[in-house]
Amino acid sequence: MTKLIKKMSVPLTSLILLLNMSSAGMAETTVSAEVGFIFNTLLFLICGFLVMFMAAGFAMLESGMVTSKSVSVICAKNIGLFSIAGIMFWLFGYNLAYGIPEGGYIGKFIPWSDSSAVDTGYSDGSDWYFQMVFCATTVSIVSGTLAERIKLWPFFLFAAILSGIIYPIVMGWQWGGGWLASMGFSDFAGSTLVHSTGGSAALAGAILLGPRLGRFTKSGSPAPLKPFAASSIPLVTLGVFVLWLGWFGFNGGSQLAMGTADDAIAVSTIFMNTFLAGAGGVMAAGIVTRLGFGKTDVVQMLNGCIGGLVAITAEPLMPSPLAAILIGAVGGVIVVYGTKLLFSLKIDDVVGAIPAHLFAGIWGTLIVPATNSGTSFGTQLIGVLSINIFVFVIAYIIWSIMKATVGIRLSKEGETKGTDVTETGVIAYAIRD
Amino acid sequence: MTKLIKKMSVPLTSLILLLNMSSAGMAETTVSAEVGFIFNTLLFLICGFLVMFMAAGFAMLESGMVTSKSVSVICAKNIGLFSIAGIMFWLFGYNLAYGIPEGGYIGKFIPWSDSSAVDTGYSDGSDWYFQMVFCATTVSIVSGTLAERIKLWPFFLFAAILSGIIYPIVMGWQWGGGWLASMGFSDFAGSTLVHSTGGSAALAGAILLGPRLGRFTKSGSPAPLKPFAASSIPLVTLGVFVLWLGWFGFNGGSQLAMGTADDAIAVSTIFMNTFLAGAGGVMAAGIVTRLGFGKTDVVQMLNGCIGGLVAITAEPLMPSPLAAILIGAVGGVIVVYGTKLLFSLKIDDVVGAIPAHLFAGIWGTLIVPATNSGTSFGTQLIGVLSINIFVFVIAYIIWSIMKATVGIRLSKEGETKGTDVTETGVIAYAIRD
Amino acid sequence: MTKLIKKMSVPLTSLILLLNMSSAGMAETTVSAEVGFIFNTLLFLICGFLVMFMAAGFAMLESGMVTSKSVSVICAKNIGLFSIAGIMFWLFGYNLAYGIPEGGYIGKFIPWSDSSAVDTGYSDGSDWYFQMVFCATTVSIVSGTLAERIKLWPFFLFAAILSGIIYPIVMGWQWGGGWLASMGFSDFAGSTLVHSTGGSAALAGAILLGPRLGRFTKSGSPAPLKPFAASSIPLVTLGVFVLWLGWFGFNGGSQLAMGTADDAIAVSTIFMNTFLAGAGGVMAAGIVTRLGFGKTDVVQMLNGCIGGLVAITAEPLMPSPLAAILIGAVGGVIVVYGTKLLFSLKIDDVVGAIPAHLFAGIWGTLIVPATNSGTSFGTQLIGVLSINIFVFVIAYIIWSIMKATVGIRLSKEGETKGTDVTETGVIAYAIRD
Repeated sequence: MTKLIKKMSVPLTSLILLLNMSSAGMAETTVSAEVGFIFNTLLFLICGFLVMFMAAGFAMLESGMVTSKSVSVICAKNIGLFSIAGIMFWLFGYNLAYGIPEGGYIGKFIPWSDSSAVDTGYSDGSDWYFQMVFCATTVSIVSGTLAERIKLWPFFLFAAILSGIIYPIVMGWQWGGGWLASMGFSDFAGSTLVHSTGGSAALAGAILLGPRLGRFTKSGSPAPLKPFAASSIPLVTLGVFVLWLGWFGFNGGSQLAMGTADDAIAVSTIFMNTFLAGAGGVMAAGIVTRLGFGKTDVVQMLNGCIGGLVAITAEPLMPSPLAAILIGAVGGVIVVYGTKLLFSLKIDDVVGAIPAHLFAGIWGTLIVPATNSGTSFGTQLIGVLSINIFVFVIAYIIWSIMKATVGIRLSKEGETKGTDVTETGVIAYAIRD
Repeated sequence: MTKLIKKMSVPLTSLILLLNMSSAGMAETTVSAEVGFIFNTLLFLICGFLVMFMAAGFAMLESGMVTSKSVSVICAKNIGLFSIAGIMFWLFGYNLAYGIPEGGYIGKFIPWSDSSAVDTGYSDGSDWYFQMVFCATTVSIVSGTLAERIKLWPFFLFAAILSGIIYPIVMGWQWGGGWLASMGFSDFAGSTLVHSTGGSAALAGAILLGPRLGRFTKSGSPAPLKPFAASSIPLVTLGVFVLWLGWFGFNGGSQLAMGTADDAIAVSTIFMNTFLAGAGGVMAAGIVTRLGFGKTDVVQMLNGCIGGLVAITAEPLMPSPLAAILIGAVGGVIVVYGTKLLFSLKIDDVVGAIPAHLFAGIWGTLIVPATNSGTSFGTQLIGVLSINIFVFVIAYIIWSIMKATVGIRLSKEGETKGTDVTETGVIAYAIRD
Repeated sequence: MTKLIKKMSVPLTSLILLLNMSSAGMAETTVSAEVGFIFNTLLFLICGFLVMFMAAGFAMLESGMVTSKSVSVICAKNIGLFSIAGIMFWLFGYNLAYGIPEGGYIGKFIPWSDSSAVDTGYSDGSDWYFQMVFCATTVSIVSGTLAERIKLWPFFLFAAILSGIIYPIVMGWQWGGGWLASMGFSDFAGSTLVHSTGGSAALAGAILLGPRLGRFTKSGSPAPLKPFAASSIPLVTLGVFVLWLGWFGFNGGSQLAMGTADDAIAVSTIFMNTFLAGAGGVMAAGIVTRLGFGKTDVVQMLNGCIGGLVAITAEPLMPSPLAAILIGAVGGVIVVYGTKLLFSLKIDDVVGAIPAHLFAGIWGTLIVPATNSGTSFGTQLIGVLSINIFVFVIAYIIWSIMKATVGIRLSKEGETKGTDVTETGVIAYAIRD
């Protein structure tokens, strides 16, 4: 069917419908509350399963980026943290986040209940599902940074605290209607709430845990150090494509409604900008590494995509397409130089999650006022600082307590053998027969 | 957009809509038959493509679990069985399943036709698509168990019989309105109809085929025997995440309707419970292997996820979230000990499909009365026994006939070289240049 | 819930609704313009993200098919071309394609603007997203054919020209309402417009670039030559499953509407036929290679799936299920013999994209009149010839200019080392520790 014919035929149909509608006195109420309810719920479910699949994206990205002796454990961490985050978010998180008083700092705990009805606008279950996968995403960000030397079960314990308590508190401040929301802070889909929260928690862990053995002996070399070479670039690539796919749900679903034409138009604009920001991040990182370092670093292109996507997440609706490309491109550049910065600071972020999620998240949140006139730089800065400092400090304290008690780092012997032998007893690749 | 603002604004909009609606005398009929038709059809199509993607999940799970000399053939089996199942289900299966008389045992064959109209509630094509991917899932379950020693084309022949005749008969008993439905058996999305059917057919094949050469010489060792090590754990992980994703469609779409707020709420609850049961399965298997055997066995966590998902499939709507976690957790434990049981019986199930699909499916179906008061343990037991015995016996007979005629097992020489060399002539991994 | 109960209950509900509807005088206008707008937009967004994910499918298919020393660059090409195509399609392509006068040959450039309103039938942003991923698909087709010896950035330059100018011109001819649409040419979802366009551009490049070093010294051998063995068959398999998934969006979304029961029925039929054609392609290729060459070539089964899908893309709505299977099966056979043909012509198509996309696309477009009586063979032939000749000639000229100026082929030394060392400096697989 040609597009032209379609373009012509639709208005005609609409006209007929509108005429009939108006004869029934309904021209202004063309979506009933129940139909709107179904559309809104459907948006949460569809966008929710896209975000859920991001868990697979993180698993593949991280599996590909670690060395081949730590891949099974990364798989265990990713399937485990997703499960833990979901259970904790049901037990505590969802209720804590929404139990916050207006303008408040912390909610009271209200047990889960489902009070869905047509006039609540969407089903509670669909909202829980959508919010839960955001919570799980926050935890996913942490797992890659700390790979190859952290103990498995202490990591799971941290995942439970992050998903059950830390993230829900921060979420309540803004999306539960707490003090940041009251102040006018704006973070549409979570550049700061989700991505920087994950990044700050990862940074605290990386500092306390220290780098992998031998990681920084030959300091400053930008070439891929062979002992730390990524185990599979195609899996990293797959992971990034899956994340990009999931991000349409992440940002699109954060419109929170699909029951009017205006909402449908908004979701469409968000899809477009989300795509363009990712594209900007890819190409910026590709150009910067090609011109700056001689080779087109595919890992930086892939991580640059994440950086671009994180950057647009704070405001994917208001930017023009060109602005979206630029916001994403800066996100991509931040990833490249952020990675170098961490390297020079001897902080070992195995998958580059801190530059992509924390640094690009800060950028994305601070640039919101450039395209959304209802926000101010000062308020955005307060939001960025308060959330990141809060999360970093709390995470640092928790990691410290765990370090002093159960221990968080594998023994030297365990790390040398590889986490797969030590922790799961399953070798990741048995390619040779 | 903050959640709070949204939460406040929706009821307002709804109120306005409701007021307008009631002024037009429509308060109780807010979804027209045609809009309902579109929503129902959309549910089948969306959930259908999610289930379709499970074929990729099985392909990755099995590719990763077999040894590296049998991977190409697993790929051929998975793409081939999906094609065969779909074609057979169009030719025979769909029509056989729905041609059954009420309360009957076997349907008469009615050729495919599409009689969709607004008053049929959804389009026949979308229903065919949704039911077809269920049929294909049943066959997918069989392929992994029999890997590494079965001949390719005899497997394809069995796939054709299972998808064209065996599964449609069983499907007709319940979802076509046959004798099990009349009796009050309850299997919401197919713990028994799909998963146990696949598992029973696999078990019959595994017994007749015998284990891989050398699999059980060092009996009882729970450590991964090097010659039988999984070729790629990240692919197994990817497969499980894809299956988990697909399962939202599998269970959610089995609500069969999305055209009312009540249906949308039900689908949301199903998504929530499906997630939680998978999470319960993962963590139960992780904890059991860590405490019981010293290492956190990632393969069991991944298979435990499947076990949890299979368990909730018989009744994903009625359980509370806590019940869903527990039902899934027991499913995960069943996978761990079911795997050990098969090992001790010297039945070689290469990917652990029998514990995950057959054993966890029995559990899930029998526990339905605990959360759904409209069912009884006795009826559930009759359903479980009748379907599993029927499928096992028929499959055993068919495998036996095939064994006696075309042969089902590769020659010793062929198996030693590896199925990839013998059957497809394509080596799966050429990682070294 | 049993299907039967559902089947019985739906008409009842519908009846009640219809009665109420008619009492409100609305029996014939059951979908309001705004609800239709939301459904149409939702169709574009859902089908759009499925097609977007095809980019991951191509990335995996190509990563798996190239040798292990060219995988990182394939990943860089795929993430890069997708980004470039999207940015170019926003800058130029979308506007060029739709700026064409009725019956015209080339459009005038109109900058992007969003004029969505209820009476436009769907949101412009959703249409842009959906059309953009088609454009990106066209470019993806080119990247695999030219793998392992083309320079990265000249490829990116070609990608920009193809997505910004060549494809949009061809798109305008038909989907923008240009001369081919006026003439009555029919290409529902782009067997020719997308797939053959990509294939023709790839063919021109392959001829000018020449084969990989050493590819044709042992001419004519159909066995997999070890130095050119595919790096990972499971990744190829994953890629094909992802493409198959995406194709439901590709063809289904090309109905361009979901706001009536008739459209919903049409989309369902398209899903069904798209599945069956892929299945036909898989099995035809499997049977032909088994009977013709002794082994069941899994790579040909996988590529046969693509061939079947490309073939049905020109007309996925009108064929009966049987016709869909047959159209797909011929597509699969064309892939097998087309691959042999290119081999005998010493044209080095690394992934078999030319047989699958160009040859099967020609077949699919020419067979349209067999099932769609509103088309004629002569007009279809004119469409096929004009588009393929136009694209081939323009692409040949552009590749030639690039060859004479910036150069398109790696140095012998660079190719011998492998593109991964030369271009990205990142080794794809570091499986051994």
